[in-house]
Amino acid sequence: MGEFELIDRFFKRAARQADVGIGDDCAIWTPSPGHQLALSADMLVEGRHFLSTVNPRDLGHKALAVNLSDLAACAATPRAFLLSLSLPRVDEHWLSGFSEGLFTLADAHGCELIGGDTTQGPLNVSITVMGEVPAHQAIMRSGAQVGDDLYVSGHLGDARLALESFRNTLSLPQTVFELARSRMERPEPRTALGVSLRGVATSMADISDGLLGDLGHILKASRVGANIEISLIHHLMLTSGAWSCPQELLQRCVLAGGDDYELVFTCHPTRRQHVESLSVACGTPVTRIGRITADPRLLLLNEDGSVLPNSFSSFDHFA
Amino acid sequence: MGEFELIDRFFKRAARQADVGIGDDCAIWTPSPGHQLALSADMLVEGRHFLSTVNPRDLGHKALAVNLSDLAACAATPRAFLLSLSLPRVDEHWLSGFSEGLFTLADAHGCELIGGDTTQGPLNVSITVMGEVPAHQAIMRSGAQVGDDLYVSGHLGDARLALESFRNTLSLPQTVFELARSRMERPEPRTALGVSLRGVATSMADISDGLLGDLGHILKASRVGANIEISLIHHLMLTSGAWSCPQELLQRCVLAGGDDYELVFTCHPTRRQHVESLSVACGTPVTRIGRITADPRLLLLNEDGSVLPNSFSSFDHFA
Repeated sequence: MGEFELIDRFFKRAARQADVGIGDDCAIWTPSPGHQLALSADMLVEGRHFLSTVNPRDLGHKALAVNLSDLAACAATPRAFLLSLSLPRVDEHWLSGFSEGLFTLADAHGCELIGGDTTQGPLNVSITVMGEVPAHQAIMRSGAQVGDDLYVSGHLGDARLALESFRNTLSLPQTVFELARSRMERPEPRTALGVSLRGVATSMADISDGLLGDLGHILKASRVGANIEISLIHHLMLTSGAWSCPQELLQRCVLAGGDDYELVFTCHPTRRQHVESLSVACGTPVTRIGRITADPRLLLLNEDGSVLPNSFSSFDHFA
Repeated sequence: MGEFELIDRFFKRAARQADVGIGDDCAIWTPSPGHQLALSADMLVEGRHFLSTVNPRDLGHKALAVNLSDLAACAATPRAFLLSLSLPRVDEHWLSGFSEGLFTLADAHGCELIGGDTTQGPLNVSITVMGEVPAHQAIMRSGAQVGDDLYVSGHLGDARLALESFRNTLSLPQTVFELARSRMERPEPRTALGVSLRGVATSMADISDGLLGDLGHILKASRVGANIEISLIHHLMLTSGAWSCPQELLQRCVLAGGDDYELVFTCHPTRRQHVESLSVACGTPVTRIGRITADPRLLLLNEDGSVLPNSFSSFDHFA
């Protein structure tokens, strides 16, 4: 099978939003008047971001999910994406599963594949995603205000738990492992919540390298600090109720696990009821875990007010 | 050096056109009213698209050039790009050269780096480029009309000559090799010509997989055929005057060499003087090599009107 047949069979579909989709030198696309574009790119490499044994359907899902998560973090509505794919060989079974996982998520979020590239080489999935947001309503990392509440969406730490299990550094009960593994391999981008927080959240980021690291970006960009109440994070791990996870491990996974693709955001305390109702409307739980401070440090507070030493480090590809 | 320091040192610059550039979850960018977006992506893999010995400055240049060539083929003005880079290791000398080659070309074409990703893995350079074109003025592959003149820009075949020399399938005089190598490693995207052909060319494509293959895309999309006068293509190879290139080799390189990044386009015959003046204004030579026919075949004609058998095949990454 040649390059063009591969594209035709697995990736080309009739253009819907695009004026010209796959099949010319460029895709042609008309932006919505009065909107800004949000653009982000994420590259997934075998052995680094996923295991060679991963189900191709899950990989197709995750490759787009991590990009949609970046759009959600800016409150942008997904519109279109481009996929560049380097493959060691043409494996029809693999391509069929990969494209199915990719398109199922794309369709669920109204995000159209409009272009890309296909080549032979070490397995590499590179996606650029484009979304729209009404002018000046994008939520950036830089808007957190002293006194704001600090929230996270969904669940944290389970993906890291699964990764450690794959690495054989711990042994999990089978049901816990399966649940954690699905969190690692099939993250759900928080598009609905991110978009609904326009005009409500003062700052937002997605949690891909661990809560403390990604919250750190908000604090640095906003020139503020934060207090996190440790007692409020213990139930954030989805699997924590299903086994007796050692407390140190739980804290490390929740605070610095990585691969969570949840949102961390800040809101003025007067918006608590509003945030709660948005959470219910979107079907995405949110947890208030602390607040923004003028003190530029990021402090982890025990219930008695004492400070937990922060020895957690976030993920760095070249560290 | 960590991932963020690497980005800060080699790739982050103050946002110019972008509302928010590198450093948040997404770049934020405001489209020009009344314009459409043109988007394209190209991925370059070591050993497939470039040799491991390539000068990193040339690689930075070429990785963006091949993308800008796609914009030129649609008559779009370059605006912004995202770079996803997989690197085996942090090599400051390499990164310095690569980013210099990249930014020099980007600045020359007014195209701003607004985002991307950096990870560890086999060397892979994946770029998505975004341009703008006034509404309904993009030039696509599908507009060629029977009777149109057929043109190519610049020079064809030299890049393939250099590739064959690197592969040791032929031996070139040193000056010829250096000239051909510069065509292979530092292609110049025909942005000015492509943009100036708005409202003039009826169809256009860039030549990346060889003239016959890429012209074939135009013919298929436009449901037409073409005649090419073989006598008109012999001077298209830049280096042909500098040595006695065997005719069969010259024809094969010009017609099906690949890696040229020139434009092939069609215009109504009444526009010949206009096309010539645009060529002069842009400083990019153009050559009329044939015409579009109702006969759906692509025929190569000798001067006596006889047909040259077409046994040339274009490049396919999975063939």
